[in-house]
Amino acid sequence: MTHNTFGHIFRVTTWGESHGPALGCVVDGTPPGIPLTEEDLQVWLNKRKPGTSKFVTQRREPDAVKILSGTFENDGALGPVTTGTPISLMIENIDQKSKDYSDIRDKYRPGHADFTYQAKYGVRDYRGGGRSSARETAARVAAGGIARKVLTHVLAREVTIRAALVQMGPHKIDHANWDWAEINNNPFWCPDPQAVITWDSYLTDLRKAGSSCGAVVEVVADGIPAGLGAPIYAKLDAEIAAALMSINAVKGVEIGNGFYAASLSGEANADEMRMEDDTPSFLSNNAGGVLGGISTGAEIVARFAVKPTSSILNPRKTVTKDGEEVDVATKGRHDPCVGIRAVPVGEAMVACVLADHALRHRAQVGDGSE
Amino acid sequence: MTHNTFGHIFRVTTWGESHGPALGCVVDGTPPGIPLTEEDLQVWLNKRKPGTSKFVTQRREPDAVKILSGTFENDGALGPVTTGTPISLMIENIDQKSKDYSDIRDKYRPGHADFTYQAKYGVRDYRGGGRSSARETAARVAAGGIARKVLTHVLAREVTIRAALVQMGPHKIDHANWDWAEINNNPFWCPDPQAVITWDSYLTDLRKAGSSCGAVVEVVADGIPAGLGAPIYAKLDAEIAAALMSINAVKGVEIGNGFYAASLSGEANADEMRMEDDTPSFLSNNAGGVLGGISTGAEIVARFAVKPTSSILNPRKTVTKDGEEVDVATKGRHDPCVGIRAVPVGEAMVACVLADHALRHRAQVGDGSE
Amino acid sequence: MTHNTFGHIFRVTTWGESHGPALGCVVDGTPPGIPLTEEDLQVWLNKRKPGTSKFVTQRREPDAVKILSGTFENDGALGPVTTGTPISLMIENIDQKSKDYSDIRDKYRPGHADFTYQAKYGVRDYRGGGRSSARETAARVAAGGIARKVLTHVLAREVTIRAALVQMGPHKIDHANWDWAEINNNPFWCPDPQAVITWDSYLTDLRKAGSSCGAVVEVVADGIPAGLGAPIYAKLDAEIAAALMSINAVKGVEIGNGFYAASLSGEANADEMRMEDDTPSFLSNNAGGVLGGISTGAEIVARFAVKPTSSILNPRKTVTKDGEEVDVATKGRHDPCVGIRAVPVGEAMVACVLADHALRHRAQVGDGSE
Amino acid sequence: MTHNTFGHIFRVTTWGESHGPALGCVVDGTPPGIPLTEEDLQVWLNKRKPGTSKFVTQRREPDAVKILSGTFENDGALGPVTTGTPISLMIENIDQKSKDYSDIRDKYRPGHADFTYQAKYGVRDYRGGGRSSARETAARVAAGGIARKVLTHVLAREVTIRAALVQMGPHKIDHANWDWAEINNNPFWCPDPQAVITWDSYLTDLRKAGSSCGAVVEVVADGIPAGLGAPIYAKLDAEIAAALMSINAVKGVEIGNGFYAASLSGEANADEMRMEDDTPSFLSNNAGGVLGGISTGAEIVARFAVKPTSSILNPRKTVTKDGEEVDVATKGRHDPCVGIRAVPVGEAMVACVLADHALRHRAQVGDGSE
Repeated sequence: MTHNTFGHIFRVTTWGESHGPALGCVVDGTPPGIPLTEEDLQVWLNKRKPGTSKFVTQRREPDAVKILSGTFENDGALGPVTTGTPISLMIENIDQKSKDYSDIRDKYRPGHADFTYQAKYGVRDYRGGGRSSARETAARVAAGGIARKVLTHVLAREVTIRAALVQMGPHKIDHANWDWAEINNNPFWCPDPQAVITWDSYLTDLRKAGSSCGAVVEVVADGIPAGLGAPIYAKLDAEIAAALMSINAVKGVEIGNGFYAASLSGEANADEMRMEDDTPSFLSNNAGGVLGGISTGAEIVARFAVKPTSSILNPRKTVTKDGEEVDVATKGRHDPCVGIRAVPVGEAMVACVLADHALRHRAQVGDGSE
Repeated sequence: MTHNTFGHIFRVTTWGESHGPALGCVVDGTPPGIPLTEEDLQVWLNKRKPGTSKFVTQRREPDAVKILSGTFENDGALGPVTTGTPISLMIENIDQKSKDYSDIRDKYRPGHADFTYQAKYGVRDYRGGGRSSARETAARVAAGGIARKVLTHVLAREVTIRAALVQMGPHKIDHANWDWAEINNNPFWCPDPQAVITWDSYLTDLRKAGSSCGAVVEVVADGIPAGLGAPIYAKLDAEIAAALMSINAVKGVEIGNGFYAASLSGEANADEMRMEDDTPSFLSNNAGGVLGGISTGAEIVARFAVKPTSSILNPRKTVTKDGEEVDVATKGRHDPCVGIRAVPVGEAMVACVLADHALRHRAQVGDGSE
Repeated sequence: MTHNTFGHIFRVTTWGESHGPALGCVVDGTPPGIPLTEEDLQVWLNKRKPGTSKFVTQRREPDAVKILSGTFENDGALGPVTTGTPISLMIENIDQKSKDYSDIRDKYRPGHADFTYQAKYGVRDYRGGGRSSARETAARVAAGGIARKVLTHVLAREVTIRAALVQMGPHKIDHANWDWAEINNNPFWCPDPQAVITWDSYLTDLRKAGSSCGAVVEVVADGIPAGLGAPIYAKLDAEIAAALMSINAVKGVEIGNGFYAASLSGEANADEMRMEDDTPSFLSNNAGGVLGGISTGAEIVARFAVKPTSSILNPRKTVTKDGEEVDVATKGRHDPCVGIRAVPVGEAMVACVLADHALRHRAQVGDGSE
Repeated sequence: MTHNTFGHIFRVTTWGESHGPALGCVVDGTPPGIPLTEEDLQVWLNKRKPGTSKFVTQRREPDAVKILSGTFENDGALGPVTTGTPISLMIENIDQKSKDYSDIRDKYRPGHADFTYQAKYGVRDYRGGGRSSARETAARVAAGGIARKVLTHVLAREVTIRAALVQMGPHKIDHANWDWAEINNNPFWCPDPQAVITWDSYLTDLRKAGSSCGAVVEVVADGIPAGLGAPIYAKLDAEIAAALMSINAVKGVEIGNGFYAASLSGEANADEMRMEDDTPSFLSNNAGGVLGGISTGAEIVARFAVKPTSSILNPRKTVTKDGEEVDVATKGRHDPCVGIRAVPVGEAMVACVLADHALRHRAQVGDGSE
């Protein structure tokens, strides 16, 4: 909500620059008594860790997360649990490759935030993009790990939040081929094994050419009961939209049918209802699990578009801080398709929004009504 | 941010139900000394007023806004100005057509928030959708009128925020035909006179059939200097996304190239820079005026998709509060395409976000840097 | 928290000036399903209503509160209940005595906010003090009525919040005489019948002399279970301190022993514990019911000091907006001791803080732990 | 405002337990371009560092603060400056004396938050009080160092915020002896050299007896222009009250005349005005620099009462977690008068509130009006 904090009750404040000594976040509002270890969070960080395939940046960062506060292990307990006080997470930056920054110190890289940070603040940490680097999302992924635990704890049911890449550059998956089990079998988090073949060759070519492409990520949350969310500005879909749009390079967000809904008739788009197991149930899910800003009990489905990586080898026209017209090319270790590493970030953001809403719901309505 | 409040410094809290005695909002954080009359706000309310053409609901509401606090006219002054204290706006509901609600009292209308409000709160004002009715957006439009005044006052420059319908059902405009002057010449806020012909006949047919369609709205803000916005969760685009997604029936939001960016290469999507009038300037605006969450100085361009009106004549399958499986059809006065009346609402929401960011910017960086 | 809003989940946003058409507030975050009528709130407003005795202002205001949104009466229900959506309350100003304001338009009244509002905003509604008038507290008292209902609903137990005047000018009550039943038997909310006699003659003299005096109010909340509150900045006592200090003319706040605790030894001040009815219990309540920012289960006891009414007949030195040195005397209808009418306001503020914390507690810890 | 965050624009989020690996805070909202080094903050931390005299705890902590983000040194610059992004501060805990905690693990220490944390959370880090330890205030003092820099930067004038101990146990200073230069000449921050003699012998005796006493601290902010603050709940005095009351062991807060004002007449308490150097000026400062929640331009004067240290050698009656009635005595390294080390904390809290209001003022009114 505020500059570097998101969430209302489950609140995450992130800090850190790409090439500073460390980055991290403070997670406040977590219920007490939830088992939590560094390993519980590391598993999610490993999903977005650089250097895992040739298709992501070769920067070598273990991204090892430390818990500095907010958990405690009672004598005789089986492990540490949350205490309800703020959880401070820290990830040290190891591989801040020492190099000559004189190039990007003065030149605004097109597509990056160099110019806008300079315009706003009059000063910026230009090393690796500083605060505007996607490296900041490591803290979000760690926070998302806590959010998942909070969700299960508060809702007292299994909640699954997972994401997949559904489009790379112009190449979309075939939804008929969707198989969640596939996403771990390829370096793209792609649920369609057919698409993997196309994508692999497409991205290999782009990478060799020093170019880049965009992507679309779909996040699905399963297990959310009807009733989470709120009217008007705390609408579940509004907050998911903000959360996803706040990820680096994201330019569009959809819920359910999204933009496609605009072309449909009211008859085609409305999800009809029938009883199932004595519970009101929807015969389709065009709404993506949200009506009037409140969850319907169906899967929550959100998609976001990631623009092509702005760091490319081909020189682009730009200007310097001093107004000189120059060309700039970005050498160095970059992701040809940042959309890939945005997958765990999208999951984390949706987890954080849902955890916050689970707590907000409990505040207003109590435990019983879920 | 919170349930019924948006904005951080320029804060708008709305209240009211569709069929209650009145609705309104409290606008806090407005700078002092800005001339403000009810007429200044009424002009925007008239844009979303029902009953202005056969293509919008025939409910007759003058939507006359009253200012109950926060302005004062000094002796000898030319008119009232803001005092810096909260501005309370109220719009009385006149035409709450007294009718039999027994149908929607018990039946959940597909596509509406009937079921989700009931699931969340266990009680709801079912008359006309209660709080979930798009009638609430009247308060937003009024607040947006204040936001426009704040923007001009704080930025000390002309700021224009306007929107147009760029797609109705499956029918898109041709951007080559775009003419802002046209939007007031047709009942659709359509900037393409060719599209108007198609849309008129298309929507006339739908309306007669008791059906409905969706739409896409594009909002353009002109005159915003580089530097508004902030990192991470207060990103200008993240907050615009939330603001637009919070409008009734919206299912998707894009900034600049939006989803189309996903299919482009880094070379094609990056906006190159050159100097223009001694100022860094962009040769294209694929970014839609935002980089790293901060304005670039180019036009801010956002689009949002509105789903087809859920209130249709054709019966749909649903269930009642008591679990009975029934059909429901919505008679009464409804918009065949709610996207039309969403146009001034979209403008208002973008105005509110920008006004808030203009004030937040001034807080952190001061007047001088804009 | 923000300029005109207090509370985090139970949020009250007030608006209105002393001599505008109306004043009111929007109460957001209320749980659904709580029976609520205008009469439920009017009873508290009647406690602070002007004109009830010769010791309070003779302005004649019925202070009739209207509920404009947020409640709904289901067919066949026994009365309206809260729906969980924002509750808009409005109180019309009736007796804005039309008079010549030229005197206070230009002269800064010592002890009032005339100069500081002018210094901050450069413009102000000078009629009756505008926004800085204690008339604004009517909205708080109405909100406090909702807060009381929320507390009982959420905590599922009887909660009593009441206040008494314990000092008028230099005259303190004798705590040994304390009898809650007495507070309704005199125009001062005084629990000590002996003190009433002194106060009556003291205040009668002051009033005739056109002078004024200060007072100390004690608020006691009974029935709050152990565990409400939170560490650090959401400490129950910190938020009560802010709430009480935010009341017009308040200059000091204490919890439990307050300033007296400074003079005690650790042995004398610590509240020892023993078991009572199988529950940990305190043998004294020097802490005033709060330890580490969290309620102990004992009575919550807070006191606040109200300065003497600044509106007095005797002329005081001041300056005008234009820098002229002049004298000013305040004629008109004023309270010789504003502390009297601060009693229901203090109760309301404590009720609001506790209601907010009851909801915040439920968010983080759930229903079960209370 | 929220559990572990204070401030609205200048926002400080603290984290950490007494005996965890580290503690710290994230400071968000700082304007860019302010020179800032660790040394700038260390000077304030050294004021509250343990082990500096026999009158404070002998725990040995260097309290060395590290800046982990938010500053950057441009090539050729004279030193690092703030970048406008979040500043993460960390202080490692060195001397967490490993000892047997079995005693306080189970026994609730009277006057401490042991019982209330257990009642709220059902789990707590009992080592040294965990989160409820005054050790947390180290992070506040560091943040206060940034706040001071922000104030000078934003207000473009010298601002001095300093505090002194004005009462120890029952022994008050004589205000006629007040000499700011004295506060660094004794271990009590006492401005009255006569009082020092009494206090030294009084506290030496208490310390030897294993007892403790309370204190009163006065904070004075000099250089604040008229116009900072805001109506109603963002009143400068309301936020100062919350900030000071949020400090460990504080039980009372006053502004200006405070509780003494209750005993005065309106004539005696009102500060009259005259012109001085062509500026409206007050002939006295009974108001303590705040009227209507907004600064008057006079010195801002606040006092707070600190209760006696709860950790004492003399055994007190208490109960265990399991309901056993026992006695408890606190051995170990404790402050006989925690009020002493609260002096720099009080300064820091007032600095944070003022910095936040300086930014909020600039947001609403702009640079020019100060």
